[in-house]
Parts: sequence; C-alpha cells; structure tokens
Amino acid sequence: MTDNMQVLLASRPVGWVTEENFKIVNAAIAKPAEGQILVRNHYLSLDPYMRGRMNDAKSYAAKQEIDQVMVGGTVGEVVESKSPKFKPGDIVVGMYGWQQYGCSDGADVRKIDVSRVPMSAHLGVVGMPGVTAWVGLLDICQPKAGETVVVSAAAGAVGSVVGQIAKLKGCRAVGVAGGQAKCDHVVNELGFDACVDYQAGRLNRDLMAATPDGIDCYFENVGGEILDAVLRRTNAFSRIAVCGLISQYNATEPYGVKTFQAILTNRIKVQGFIVSDRMTLWPPAMGELAGWVASGKLKYRETVAQGLENAPKAFVGLLKGQNFGKQLVKLI
Amino acid sequence: MTDNMQVLLASRPVGWVTEENFKIVNAAIAKPAEGQILVRNHYLSLDPYMRGRMNDAKSYAAKQEIDQVMVGGTVGEVVESKSPKFKPGDIVVGMYGWQQYGCSDGADVRKIDVSRVPMSAHLGVVGMPGVTAWVGLLDICQPKAGETVVVSAAAGAVGSVVGQIAKLKGCRAVGVAGGQAKCDHVVNELGFDACVDYQAGRLNRDLMAATPDGIDCYFENVGGEILDAVLRRTNAFSRIAVCGLISQYNATEPYGVKTFQAILTNRIKVQGFIVSDRMTLWPPAMGELAGWVASGKLKYRETVAQGLENAPKAFVGLLKGQNFGKQLVKLI
Repeated sequence: MTDNMQVLLASRPVGWVTEENFKIVNAAIAKPAEGQILVRNHYLSLDPYMRGRMNDAKSYAAKQEIDQVMVGGTVGEVVESKSPKFKPGDIVVGMYGWQQYGCSDGADVRKIDVSRVPMSAHLGVVGMPGVTAWVGLLDICQPKAGETVVVSAAAGAVGSVVGQIAKLKGCRAVGVAGGQAKCDHVVNELGFDACVDYQAGRLNRDLMAATPDGIDCYFENVGGEILDAVLRRTNAFSRIAVCGLISQYNATEPYGVKTFQAILTNRIKVQGFIVSDRMTLWPPAMGELAGWVASGKLKYRETVAQGLENAPKAFVGLLKGQNFGKQLVKLI
Repeated sequence: MTDNMQVLLASRPVGWVTEENFKIVNAAIAKPAEGQILVRNHYLSLDPYMRGRMNDAKSYAAKQEIDQVMVGGTVGEVVESKSPKFKPGDIVVGMYGWQQYGCSDGADVRKIDVSRVPMSAHLGVVGMPGVTAWVGLLDICQPKAGETVVVSAAAGAVGSVVGQIAKLKGCRAVGVAGGQAKCDHVVNELGFDACVDYQAGRLNRDLMAATPDGIDCYFENVGGEILDAVLRRTNAFSRIAVCGLISQYNATEPYGVKTFQAILTNRIKVQGFIVSDRMTLWPPAMGELAGWVASGKLKYRETVAQGLENAPKAFVGLLKGQNFGKQLVKLI
C-alpha cells in the first residue's frame, strides 16, 4: 500500500470556487482498530451540496471545517476488516470523503450488490442522486399521468432521473439545461418530451412553447431566472420541490425572485427538502430505481474524472455545469 | 323602498387604486321572481382580494368586469321571499357585492344565527376572514405548542385572528403591523407576545428581538421586505401559509424576494391558498371561531365606513393599511 491521498479544504471561497480553495496532502493509511474496517475507495461522488458546506454559514448540514478532508460520498472495497459484519472484498457505499482510503466502524456504510448495476451507479442513479429525484418527484410533487413535469439541470445526476421517472408515470417531461448538446441528450437519449436551453437567450418563450398546457410540477435544482420563468407558467395547484439552487451557490448577490406572487395566485405548494431527512424512503426508492436500471427503463450517464488529484478541477466544472449526468472521480 | 345604490368598476387601476376607478349609480330594486329572494344588505365587507379582481389578469378568481357591480361579501335581511327556503327577517350572508339590495335564488347565501355574535362579525371574525385565519394556521401551518408563529398585517381582519388562535394553541404569537398604534393594539388588546412595527425602519433587528427562538410558522398577508425578513429568521422545517401579498397588489414593479434559498436550507413548506378552495373546513372552522368569540377568548375590532358612497374611499384606505381589524361598510 501507498499513502492515503486526501483533499482538504484550504480556504473558504468568496463567490466562485477555485482549485486554490483545496489542498492535496498525503497521509498515512489508517490501521483499523478492533471493530473497524479499512476501505479502499474506488469512486468519489461530486455533488453541488458540497458548495454549501464550504461556506462559513448556516446550511442544512454542518459546515466543512478548514484543513479537514472534504466531505463526500464514496464507493469502495473493504480491504481489511476487524469487524464481524464485514469481510475483505465487500463493496460498500459510505461518506469517507475526498480521500483514497476510509476507516470506520462501518456503522456509516452500507453493503451494496453490484451484480445488477455497477459500482459507480450506486453513487448516482441508484444512490443519493437517484433517491433525491425519486423523493422530490414522487413524494413531494406527486405528479398525475398527463401532467407536465419540468426539471432544471435536466442533464445532471438528479434531473436526468426526475424526467425519466416522470415519463414512466405518464407525464409530459420537460427539461431545462445549459446548451444544445445537453438538451439533445435529454430528449434523444433519455426520452424527455422537450428540453429548453436556457443559454439560448429565449427562456420564457421557449419554456412557453415546451409547456403548452402549463406546468404542474417543478423539480428545482437551479433557481434564479429559471425559477421565475417556471413560476410564470405554473398551473393552479402546482407543486414545486426545491432540491437545489445551484445558480445561487457562487453568487455574491442573491437573485431576487420576481414572481413569488404566483405561489398565492396558483395556490402552489413549495417544499424545500434534503434527502437525508427522509431516510425511510430510501429502501423503496433504491429498490424501484435498481429495478428500472436493470430492466433498461432508466438510463444514466457519467462524467468521470481520473484520479483524486483532479477532483478540485472536476468540482469547479460541476458547479459551472460542465458535466453530463453524474460527476464522479475514479480513484483507482 | 328607494333605488338600489350600486358601486361599479369604472376603470382598471394602474398601480394604486383611486376613487376614480369606481362609479356610483342608482339602479331599480329588483323584483324577485318565483323561487327568488330580495335581501337588503346591512354590511358590505371590504377585502384585499378585491384588488386582484380589478386587474385584467389571471388571478385565483374571475376578474371583475368593467361597469359591473363590484364583487363583495354582504350580510343583510331578507325583505321579500318567493322561495320556500327563506322568510322575511332571515339574516343571510352572501356575495351580493357593493350594492344596497341583492336578489338571487338563495343558493349562494347562508342563513346565520345572530344570537351569539352580531351580524357584522359574520363578515369578519366568524366569516371568511376568520375561516381564512383558521385554515391557514391550523390546516396548513399546523403549529405545535411552544413554537413561534409570526403573522403580517397582524392588526387586520385575518391577522388578528391568526395570532389569537396561535395563543390559544400555546404558541408564541408575534405580529408585524404598520405603526405603533396597531402594534399596541395587537399586544395589549389581542394578547400577542410581541409586535414589530415595520414602519419603524428596523425590521430585521426588531424581528430578531421578537423571535429569539426563530420562526416556525409564518402566516403571510403582505410580502415584500417583510417576507425577506421573516425568511431570514425561519427555523428548519418551518411552514409558511401564503394568504395575501398586499404590498404587491398596487406595485408596478414586483419586489424581488432575496431569501428564497432559505426554503431549501431550512426545508420550508410554502403553501399558497385561498379559503374558497377548502369549503369542507368552513363548518368546523366557523363553529370553533363562534365558540371562541362567544366565550370571550377571541376578540375583534371593526373599522366601519358609513354609507355605500364611502366604500371606494374606505377600500383605498384598506389597501394603505388605514383600517384596524375588519373593514366594513354600513349600508343602513
């Protein structure tokens, strides 16, 4: 074994994150104590929520401390076990963060079955992002067949699942994404009915054309002008699941939402959520997602950075929307 | 009998409503046909929702047509009945609008008992505004004892009931109102724990002082800067019932809500509502409200304009927050 490469938070970003906000170090690989396991991480998940943790501010989770290993979901293989619950070779999903090896008592990891879907997908379509899509759409928005579902960041790890579930439930699925290539992917490969390229400069007009019967459900990942444009198209009694507001995470001035009054006029339900608050829904969600993936009904795409040393650059790219589907870092 | 004085919408306001947007006419008193009743209205209710109806725009109800009698809730006495369901002397609440007499088949009115609470209160504390308070607070926000409930327009017909119900449920009740006189009324007469005068120029600081444990429930009647100030103080899993946004009804430019991100961070539920969508809740709400009024647990105040010809002026005053409690027009 070599050292355990780690990525630490070096400084808190002001506005946009840069690679200089991170620091790469080599630590010794931990020796598992009695009851502990040592896991070699194969993949690290990069997710927008990490940006919030980097701030010195109240968020839905504890902030990331300076000079500590960046928080993050991982999937890897148990390489040494002093716990009766694990054996070498077990594949586990955990939160070991931005490092090559993790060591814990195993209470914070779960064993996964990689026979039906590959290891990496347990960080994406059948993992936290997939469950997020499932919870926000099915538990919060509760779309009915024939309704119109709109999702922003539609080509991302969460958004791509939202639209495909909407189609499985008989809805019209409309994505909002940045650039024609993502929109083409969303429509031609994932089967959405339409996708609006917000970078084309005709957001309100294009969204109106894509939603001729208005909008009944909105899965919000982005915020800003897209939120205002969607609110203008909402129908009476529509539902909005607020999962993320990525356009705001690096903004120094918050965007002022101009169409809040639609919430009153259309008697909209808006629900902010974070998937870790709803742990009882994970087992049914993961089961259904895995079934859809195994049967080919649910497609996914991954953008994979090679090597932990490239994680900071990949994370900056994620926040700028440079990824297609799930952003991963391959560590081995 | 004399003529039937009526107030019509003469023109749609641009920005602030003025008295010139209305026109007063004298029409003949209708002769009830077989199955119909003629009602002499004693009180007309003035409510903020009427402002929305005056616009040529989509709202939660049909717009008010030009040269038609202004929409509005009324309470009055049946003076002639050709319906087996009513007799002269019956007191009824209806939607006869801004006029002295109403005539209909009675399907749109309900008989009320004025032995426990006076006639006028059936347009206020035990009528639509009271039910609105009950539904928004108890059905949507569902406050638990010990939680902090904030309501804007706290001295108004709806807000005054919201805070008093919050107290009855064991909550800390905090109002936001315009001016020291209203705040004194809310605290000293209605029993709120605190009231923030938004006109004093220290909104964020005063709201923080009034809500030391943060805000769990917000009953929104006003919008604008007050909404932003409240969102900054929300706790995790707080609930917001959006009943009105009176600060926006006469605005030519919508206010940009800067703290929308709190909905995500604090996993807030925001629900716009209009009480007429929830008719099944009216009977239990009215029963409970009437009981509280009769037993002295629920207080109310009225601002009464004399004579239908003064309704336009009183309505402009209502939109500017010049009323205390329920704004009525006495027609007799």
